[in-house]
Formats: sequence, structure tokens, C-alpha cells
Amino acid sequence: MARINSNYKNLPKSYLFSEIARKTKAFSEANPDMEILKLGIGNTTQALVPAVIKGLMLGVEKLSSKKTYTGYGDEQGDTRLRQALANWYEKRGVNLEPEEIFISDGAKSDAANIASIFDQNSIVAITDPVYPVYLDSNITSGRKIVYLEALEENNFIPNPPKQKKDLIFLCSPNNPTGAVMNKKQLKEFVDYAIKFNAVIIFDAAYSEYISDKGLPRSIYEIKGAKSCAIELQSFSKSAGFTGVRLGWTVVPKDLVIEGSKTGEINQIWNRRQTTMFNGASNIAQEGGLAVLSNEGQRQTARQIKYYMENAAIIKKGLESIGLKVFGGENAPYIWVKTPNKLTSWEFFDKLLNEAHVVSTPGSGFGSMGEGYIRLSAFGSAENIKKAVESIKRNLKI
Amino acid sequence: MARINSNYKNLPKSYLFSEIARKTKAFSEANPDMEILKLGIGNTTQALVPAVIKGLMLGVEKLSSKKTYTGYGDEQGDTRLRQALANWYEKRGVNLEPEEIFISDGAKSDAANIASIFDQNSIVAITDPVYPVYLDSNITSGRKIVYLEALEENNFIPNPPKQKKDLIFLCSPNNPTGAVMNKKQLKEFVDYAIKFNAVIIFDAAYSEYISDKGLPRSIYEIKGAKSCAIELQSFSKSAGFTGVRLGWTVVPKDLVIEGSKTGEINQIWNRRQTTMFNGASNIAQEGGLAVLSNEGQRQTARQIKYYMENAAIIKKGLESIGLKVFGGENAPYIWVKTPNKLTSWEFFDKLLNEAHVVSTPGSGFGSMGEGYIRLSAFGSAENIKKAVESIKRNLKI
Repeated sequence: MARINSNYKNLPKSYLFSEIARKTKAFSEANPDMEILKLGIGNTTQALVPAVIKGLMLGVEKLSSKKTYTGYGDEQGDTRLRQALANWYEKRGVNLEPEEIFISDGAKSDAANIASIFDQNSIVAITDPVYPVYLDSNITSGRKIVYLEALEENNFIPNPPKQKKDLIFLCSPNNPTGAVMNKKQLKEFVDYAIKFNAVIIFDAAYSEYISDKGLPRSIYEIKGAKSCAIELQSFSKSAGFTGVRLGWTVVPKDLVIEGSKTGEINQIWNRRQTTMFNGASNIAQEGGLAVLSNEGQRQTARQIKYYMENAAIIKKGLESIGLKVFGGENAPYIWVKTPNKLTSWEFFDKLLNEAHVVSTPGSGFGSMGEGYIRLSAFGSAENIKKAVESIKRNLKI
Repeated sequence: MARINSNYKNLPKSYLFSEIARKTKAFSEANPDMEILKLGIGNTTQALVPAVIKGLMLGVEKLSSKKTYTGYGDEQGDTRLRQALANWYEKRGVNLEPEEIFISDGAKSDAANIASIFDQNSIVAITDPVYPVYLDSNITSGRKIVYLEALEENNFIPNPPKQKKDLIFLCSPNNPTGAVMNKKQLKEFVDYAIKFNAVIIFDAAYSEYISDKGLPRSIYEIKGAKSCAIELQSFSKSAGFTGVRLGWTVVPKDLVIEGSKTGEINQIWNRRQTTMFNGASNIAQEGGLAVLSNEGQRQTARQIKYYMENAAIIKKGLESIGLKVFGGENAPYIWVKTPNKLTSWEFFDKLLNEAHVVSTPGSGFGSMGEGYIRLSAFGSAENIKKAVESIKRNLKI
């Protein structure tokens, strides 16, 4: 008799964003004439840049002629794209072979799947608050989870765990807190992982929002990281590919744990992907190549700047009315402490009812997120300004 | 200390298609002037039809303007596409709600992931020979597997298992044998599943290759199937989307197993997808809508006819030299019995060396595939004719 995977019962009842959508819809239906300003979900809003549109069009055009048509590609990704990414890393001082770079349909799937190549009994360390995917995927797999607390006291950068853990998920620039790990902080985790034979899963999806040259944009900028870290990356936020779906995962050949040979973990991920994934869309991959072209890099950099100007507007506006604000400097997320010890959902409701602004309750990212809300800079400048003005004018603190 | 998932050690050493690629490459390097005719991998070769190219172009164009740009969509897929698929099913007498249809990046990922929503201790019944994804994904998850033998004696359609099994993977039209289940045979499985509280995972990716009106193109054409079956589907073979990546999975609300409520399994798959997947590419989904348009259906039907003419050429040609051939009538695969009791790999080598034709060894699909090779009709008519002529002329039987 078939039975349901009982681990699903251990998941929080409702996925954060669907609950926000439900509340927003209810407010909208009760106030049909009110303009609702959405600063909640981290969803890009600006058109793709011209160089990338051209690349995607080329991708479609190729499929229209038998001579250039391609069906199944390598599950690991188009060789040209893997090479282009190796070159991209090289420019920032990181040497990777194309075979260490696996093209994905975005970081979310790989973030959810990566733990499956490790032992089912692995103990997983996850920050709190956290992007829910790392947590929920490990809950449904039945793995044991421990939390690393990201608090105001530690500038939202937790210390490495005290005891031995097997897998450690880190995200920097962080979603949801907007905190960015410096080299020293990241090195402490690398040293920990090497010492305890742990593996770091480093989500660098927001790396392009770092403007401070001193901050690491890849974990491989840290000495020794290739021997203990996997890096998840994405075109979603750096090029507006949230809907196009394209990312990549780096599994270095040097990544070893006790009992494994050089290259073995790289090969197992390769086996996982060739068996259980069929490659990212060839159209999206042609777009990815365009992102990495010189013109693509110039144009997407301008778009990132645009979003970061939004972040600055939010940060400045909220600080001007006395709110305590974190992040938003090298990250597109602003982490706001709720005033008057409101809970996250209370402040969410207050922002929605008084200022008609949709935020994301910090408690949805974990218990240590309670007392915070997350705002996203991915809106249009026009809406961001309206939202900040509305908060300044209407919020009764 | 992190450890590797030891189930990976239980996988066959090399994935079938990479071994074929290796042998083909070696032959090609040893015979640089020889034209190699590839009838191995089931990869589409013809350009996308004009209506679909138009749809994909529209998908890209929308991303070029802020007004029509879309970022993250619903993980379950674009509402319009889910509705269009519900309408498509309705035309063939199957009633499904859009909420029962989950858009995927192709059937492979979902085929590999679907078992994860059921108990880890589920016993999985898989046909032998079989499309390797069902098998390998369940091996790496550590599930217990039993085999249902597809043999010449039973026309490659196995009977339902004798004892209770929990999950049963079926594929019809079948990859690799080209066998197609009739309504009576499929009903036996549905009755079995209802009786024993088992769940059938029905892979219908090749349904559009059925021209015989009496054969079922969806398991839901069988009474009672909604209460016990999940259907995997794909645009890969019906519209040439092998590289574009788009498919869908049907999880009916009526699907129940002992202890579950109506709609519960549908909701758990929904939770799985919203947590661990971020939706198919919005460009591909726009293309999917174009496939389902009247013009798209007309044009893709012509392309399917083209491939099926190839199948007929292969079948007829091989039969003319005395080979025993199965499939190829309502399926794009031709299952060829090796002559003189050769093993699959021996006949593979013989076809490659003598006729310069690449096939797929049946033994790569399971031990019951030993003594067979699979040929695919997805080439160009020109190449298919060349290959068949070369076999007729050069093969020394």
C-alpha cells in the first residue's frame, strides 16, 4: 500500500509567499480603489536589457531552421556557457574548469537537490532566518537540522557551529537580511568545514549586488574553499532571469570529504544531473551567453545599479522616520526592525493597512526573523518612491 | 563529517548514452571520413514549426518591455497554459481541472522526483527493460525495486505484479520497446492499483505518436484511473521541445490512497513544486501555448507524421533483410531482436562497424533488453533512408 512521505507533515503549514498573496488579495478586494505597493517578494520588474533580448531571440531563431536546431543538449549545460562562466570567474581571480560548472534552471532547484548527493543522515546547519528552500527541502528529506542564529548582535552573520555538522547552507549577500559576509567571516566557515570534513553550500545568487570591492562575491575567493564548498549561482537577480530560469552550481573537483577521492563528488553531482535533470532551456542558455558578453555585462550592471538606487531610497526613507534598518548596501534586501516590539505579521498588517505596502514578514524566514520585515528593492523606482512616501506619510508609529 | 549518499554506489557504472557517445566518438576518430548515421538517442532533429517559433518569439518580446515583462510566475505554471491543457484533455474525453495539471521543465525531472512525495519505504515496480530515469532515481533514493518483465512472449506488455507493490511506473507508448498498451491491458493495472492501494506513474510522453484510435493516449481514458494514477507528459516529442524544456504532470484531486484525503496528494505535489522548483521558463510556456493553438496542433501533427514515416521506413527495411522488428507503429521507437543470438552490445558494435549506424543497446535498458537494440525514428528522413540502405547493403547477418 502506497503511503505519503510523512516528512511533509513536518513542514510549516503554508508557504510564506502564498500567505502574503492571500492577505494582499483580501486587502485588495476590500479596498478595490487603493493602489497596493508591493515591496514583498524579491521578484525582478524591469525589462531584460537589449543585449540579452538579442541573445534570446537568437536562441529562438536557431530552433526555426533544421541546420541550427538543437534538441537535447548536455544535461550539464552548453559547453560554450560553461566556458564563458569559467572565464567570468577568472576575471575575478577564481580559477575553475568548465567541468566544475553545472548549468541549472536556476538556483532554487539545485539548492533543494544538492543535499541528496550526501548521506541521508547528514546533519544540516542552516541559518535562522533563512531562505525557506534550504530548510523545507531538508525537512521533506527527513534530515536533522540545526540552526545558526543570525541576530542583530552579530550583524546577522552567525558564527560557525560549535560541534561537528555535515552540511552548512550559507547565503551571502543574504536573503532575507541583506547582510554580507566579509572575507574574515567567510574564512572562519571555510576553516571550520576543512577541520570537520563538512561541506558548505554557498548561495551567491546576489553576488552582483556587492559594490564594496573588499567583500567576496564568490566563496572561492577564500583560500581552501574549493576543497570544502559548493557554490550556487543564478542569472535571476543579476540579469532579470527570474522567469527565464537559468543558473549554475559549482562543484569543484578538489571538493573532498574523508573517504572520497578527488573529483568524486563532482562526478556524483554529474551523475545526479545527467540522471534526474535534462538541462536548462537552450533558449535561456543562449540568453545566458548574452548576459556574459561585454555588452550584456555593461547593460545588466546598469540595471543592478538601478535596483540598488531603490534600496538606498528605501533605507534612507525608513531611517528618516526612525525605523531601524539593516542591509540594502551590498544587497537588494532591506531588513527592517519592527517598531514598538510588534511581531512581524503585526507590522506586515500595519504596513499593508496604513501605507498599502506589501512587505515580507521576517518570521516567515525563521523564528529569529520574528520582529523584522523584509523589503525588496526589485520594484520600479516609481513604485519604490511611492511606497516610501506612503510609509512616511501614513504609517503611525 | 559529511558522507556521500552511498546509494550512488548501487547505480550502474556508466549512463547508457554517455557510453554510446564514447564508442561513437572512438569510431569516428578512427574513421574520420566515414559518415556516421545516428539512430540511437531519441533526440528530435526537425526545426520547430512556424506557429511555435512565433509563440516563442512572443515570449521573448514580452520580456523586452517593462509593461509585459514577467519575473517569477507560479511554480505550478502559467494559468493560461494549465487551462489550455485542460481543454486539450477535454477534447479527448478526459476532464481535468487546471489545478490538477502542473507545468514542468519536461517529464524527466518529474519522473525522477515524483516518488519523493511517497514513503521512503515504498516498493517500486518497474518494467524491464525501462527508461533508466525511473530506475536510477529510485536507486539513488534507496527504494526497493521489483521488476515487471516485458518480453516477446507478452508482446512487451507485462502483467500487473502478483503481490502488493506501492508505486508502479508504466510508459506507453513505450520507450524503449515501442509497445503500446491497449485499454484492456491498462485497465488491468488500474484495477490492480485500486485493489492494492498502489499508485501508477504513467509516462505518456509519446502519446501523440498513437494513430490507432482504439489505443489510449492518456491513462485517464480508463475508468477509475483518476483515483490511482499520476500522468507524466511532455512537449519534447510532440513538438520538438527536447531542448526547449516543457512538460506537465497530472495529479488528480481524486487520487487517494488509504489514509489520505481527497485532494491531499495533489496538495503535497503542489507543496513539493512550490518549495523545490521555480516554474518552467516563461518563454517555453509561451511556446507551449502556441503548440496547443489550432495552428500549432495542425503543424506539429504533420511533424509527428514525418517521424512516423521514418519509423515505417526503418521497420520495413529491417524486416526485408530478415530481422525481427517490434514497435514503430504507434511509437517512434523500433525494437530490433539481434540476429544469431548476439548480445545487444555485440550487435551495436556490428551495426556501427559494418553499417556505420549508431543504435541503442537494449541491455542498457535492463537485463530483459539483452538481445535487442533500439532504433529511433527522430532523425531526418534523408539520414534514416541512408541508414536503412547502409544496413541493407553492408550488414553481414
